[in-house]
Amino acid sequence: MGKYIFGADVGGTSVKMGLFDMAGMVVDKWEIPTRTENAGEHILPDIADSINQKIAENRYIKEDIAGIGMAVPGPVDAAGVVNKAVNLGWGVTPVKETMEKLCGIPTVAGNDANVAALGEMWKGGGQGYDSLVLVTLGTGIGGGIIVDGRLVTGADGAGGEIGHMHVMDDEPEACNCGCKGCLEQYGSATGIVRLAKRNLERTDKPSTLRDGEITAKAVFDAVRSGDAVAKDIAGEFGEILGKGFAMIASVLNPAAFVVGGGVSKAGDILFEYIRPSFEKYVFPGAKGAKFVLATLGNDAGIYGSAKLVLDMM
Amino acid sequence: MGKYIFGADVGGTSVKMGLFDMAGMVVDKWEIPTRTENAGEHILPDIADSINQKIAENRYIKEDIAGIGMAVPGPVDAAGVVNKAVNLGWGVTPVKETMEKLCGIPTVAGNDANVAALGEMWKGGGQGYDSLVLVTLGTGIGGGIIVDGRLVTGADGAGGEIGHMHVMDDEPEACNCGCKGCLEQYGSATGIVRLAKRNLERTDKPSTLRDGEITAKAVFDAVRSGDAVAKDIAGEFGEILGKGFAMIASVLNPAAFVVGGGVSKAGDILFEYIRPSFEKYVFPGAKGAKFVLATLGNDAGIYGSAKLVLDMM
Repeated sequence: MGKYIFGADVGGTSVKMGLFDMAGMVVDKWEIPTRTENAGEHILPDIADSINQKIAENRYIKEDIAGIGMAVPGPVDAAGVVNKAVNLGWGVTPVKETMEKLCGIPTVAGNDANVAALGEMWKGGGQGYDSLVLVTLGTGIGGGIIVDGRLVTGADGAGGEIGHMHVMDDEPEACNCGCKGCLEQYGSATGIVRLAKRNLERTDKPSTLRDGEITAKAVFDAVRSGDAVAKDIAGEFGEILGKGFAMIASVLNPAAFVVGGGVSKAGDILFEYIRPSFEKYVFPGAKGAKFVLATLGNDAGIYGSAKLVLDMM
Repeated sequence: MGKYIFGADVGGTSVKMGLFDMAGMVVDKWEIPTRTENAGEHILPDIADSINQKIAENRYIKEDIAGIGMAVPGPVDAAGVVNKAVNLGWGVTPVKETMEKLCGIPTVAGNDANVAALGEMWKGGGQGYDSLVLVTLGTGIGGGIIVDGRLVTGADGAGGEIGHMHVMDDEPEACNCGCKGCLEQYGSATGIVRLAKRNLERTDKPSTLRDGEITAKAVFDAVRSGDAVAKDIAGEFGEILGKGFAMIASVLNPAAFVVGGGVSKAGDILFEYIRPSFEKYVFPGAKGAKFVLATLGNDAGIYGSAKLVLDMM
């Protein structure tokens, strides 16, 4: 029986790493760069080196370590094999097997958005809910779904891809995924900027958004200072996101939506725009879902990675 | 350790009942009427009498019975309490507790649409898939979701209410649930009739559907005989249903959609209309879902009820 857990959240520029005790307290936290050259062949050896070094520094023995949890930006199957992670340069990569060979420690891997949901449920904004949907409003929209305390990874590792749920007919522009009318085209940071530009073109109304760079933050700052055009933009954002949440709730009836990512820094004001639309579209029996903010920020992945290890025991 | 299981699927007019061995073979199958008078107070005692009588007839002892599974048309919580079942006249009804008192046998209860999904996974069209969505195209649209072999019941027992997922903006008419643009308004038997009437009003084209009663069956029979208007109707049906399936797949990435209910008697031709739209709207990583027909018909509920008992052991 181990005493400690390593968690690693592998991103395109850096790997966030954490050392946890079995209760989920952070013992240590650090980062290493992600070397994506040569199809990302150094990434796993670099992580293994860092873990082995940390074990040596702390004078642990291998038996002290319950496991290594890994959050990876791509679909991960039940055997811990990643099927392509574009940001890392990876093709099919046996993460679990490779790490176990390099460290001699049991390893478990999951998709980063899914793993973040586990982290938020365990130690973040989702505490107390065992059925929740994490919605990460960043450059894109990521999602992670937990039902009865367990991750929904999906038959092909594509569970929780709610950013690519179709929510709008008649969208002329294509999403990165190739489809048109995906949630991500409206509710992500880039989506909000798109909505903002469209709105500003449509109207002659004065707006502080006409000066300076348009960002999701600028839009919600302007909402707070009473800017009418910014409120229209937020209204459109809330209408579409609320509709998307309602669609998800009619399928899953989660106890809570946990909203994270850069856009969530705008705070509870988001929910003032999302909630009315949610209630308009949702199946009445699923109306009870709570809306809460994620609290772990960039640490959700390492917390969730540690929880992956606890869940496999 | 019991040798037999009772399953009861409680409907508004009759209760379908089954006696199963532990491998899921049907030993006996029968029906009793559902007496909904006096707020449905006779329903559970009638079922209990029928079970107790069957035990006596077969000269079983109580210990021979592993459990009773119940499928109920309403939301069921983890304690086996139904929160309102309109078709039965029930308010809040403790199904598990009542049956255990009346029969002295462990009982487990679930929502009928969810339980049917379990039945189809176990012994029906969904065999071999441990993540599936059962879509029952009947008078309305029912749904049941299974992830990693387990039912998604939802935080309020409203999991799988996919008939009430919003799929169309600009719908002028309201659904039974009060919302506008629910999947059920287009993909159910009544939904198809609605689409058919709208189509026939819009066009002067000749169609065999102008003679006789318009039903879902009549529409798909006309499709098979080459009727152009019927094909347009089926096209619209497939476009909307495929979009709905795509939304679900982007959230859950199931291995299969299992399609049942009266409309599914049209057969595989349904998929010719649903699949192209599904592929247009779905997140590419979730495109692999198989489309299969349900095979248990009205017996899905009793099979699923028996499986509920096995799963609780």
